[in-house]
Amino acid sequence: MIRTIAFDADDTLWHSEILYNEAQERLVDLLTGFESSGEVLAELYQTEMSNLPLYGYGINSFGLSMIETAVRLSNGSVDGHTVQAIIEIIKGMKKEPVRLIDGVAEVIRNLAGDYRLMVITKGDLLDQQAKVERSGLADCFSHIEVVSTKTVEVYRALLTEHRIECHEFVMVGNSPRSDIVPVVALGARAVHIPYPIVWPHEQADVGLTGTSPADYYCLEHIGLLPSLVAELDKERGN
Amino acid sequence: MIRTIAFDADDTLWHSEILYNEAQERLVDLLTGFESSGEVLAELYQTEMSNLPLYGYGINSFGLSMIETAVRLSNGSVDGHTVQAIIEIIKGMKKEPVRLIDGVAEVIRNLAGDYRLMVITKGDLLDQQAKVERSGLADCFSHIEVVSTKTVEVYRALLTEHRIECHEFVMVGNSPRSDIVPVVALGARAVHIPYPIVWPHEQADVGLTGTSPADYYCLEHIGLLPSLVAELDKERGN
Repeated sequence: MIRTIAFDADDTLWHSEILYNEAQERLVDLLTGFESSGEVLAELYQTEMSNLPLYGYGINSFGLSMIETAVRLSNGSVDGHTVQAIIEIIKGMKKEPVRLIDGVAEVIRNLAGDYRLMVITKGDLLDQQAKVERSGLADCFSHIEVVSTKTVEVYRALLTEHRIECHEFVMVGNSPRSDIVPVVALGARAVHIPYPIVWPHEQADVGLTGTSPADYYCLEHIGLLPSLVAELDKERGN
Repeated sequence: MIRTIAFDADDTLWHSEILYNEAQERLVDLLTGFESSGEVLAELYQTEMSNLPLYGYGINSFGLSMIETAVRLSNGSVDGHTVQAIIEIIKGMKKEPVRLIDGVAEVIRNLAGDYRLMVITKGDLLDQQAKVERSGLADCFSHIEVVSTKTVEVYRALLTEHRIECHEFVMVGNSPRSDIVPVVALGARAVHIPYPIVWPHEQADVGLTGTSPADYYCLEHIGLLPSLVAELDKERGN
């Protein structure tokens, strides 16, 4: 019997990667005098990957990497006005209204009546808490867990802390690396709902290979989740 | 009977504000051609306060505010090399070894034998988790809670989540605003261990006025904590 359903946040409950893409396009425009679009994006990605262990996930981290990329690609000749323009991009991202993915509000309100719902997300603590608040769905979730990484050990510790048995738990998210593979490895069930844009980091090195089709479920959109959950509950009852 | 003792992290378990002060001095040096030391520090503080609701606490947030301060005080004429130097200051802070405050290791190991110990800290999630790991004391703490703010509501929610009764709980920290006032307001006990340097934000607007001396304890250094806790436990027993 399923008791707890946990949701990833960015690109599972609301649009996020599209904001990063828009920010990257604006960075490309700002650095158009220095490098090609492809070069800017490649350098930014490399800078982000190199800084991830130090800065962690989230907009502050992304912002610092954008500034570093601008300095490096301009050989230090970027001016303060361009740096300030990047800072304004960061602040704009922070202030952006939460744009729920189609169907999320109905599905979450529907499931909250029958199951304990949680959010388990990476990212900046303040950003993610603020987005849950602004989503209008905060009252549907019993816990918001912001973690610095999503490994088998992190999921195991969360399940222990919240006294959740593996067979009672379902994780829903868009990232194979973070939301599916570690959950399946733990022996719990996972539902993959792909988002059209994927940050390469969340794809890199980890696919769903080695995870047999029976271990996880793939849905085209979140509107199909309640009937899948009902079906899983019924199977378990037999 | 006391069961759980929670500790603030920065400037309670390890030195932190001194790193920010050193970083500020380096920023003053970098901007020496533009403004006086006092002007740089005042502008930085104002920028930090203005950005706090957007960026939250921690080094990434501080770094973005340092860069913005440099741009503003130079009227946009700061060059990329100076911006890169600020980025290097940020990365240096991230890599800094954890410097435990004198007596912390012994006191924490001693208390961990008899009480459940927690860390309750603001700041960047990744930074704070990494510091606990590097402190060598991670195994002494049953939970590390990184929160975006320390209000009465946040403490109440943590106590509920961890099934802790107010009279069984003691909070130990250096900030009246974050570690003492809300805990006393909740009806639990708090121990104030002042640190020589205080970030003005943690003093501002909130003192210990309105909190009667009986509500909290003040210790000169953490080495005195085990005997205070023993005494509190004895009082409760009478």
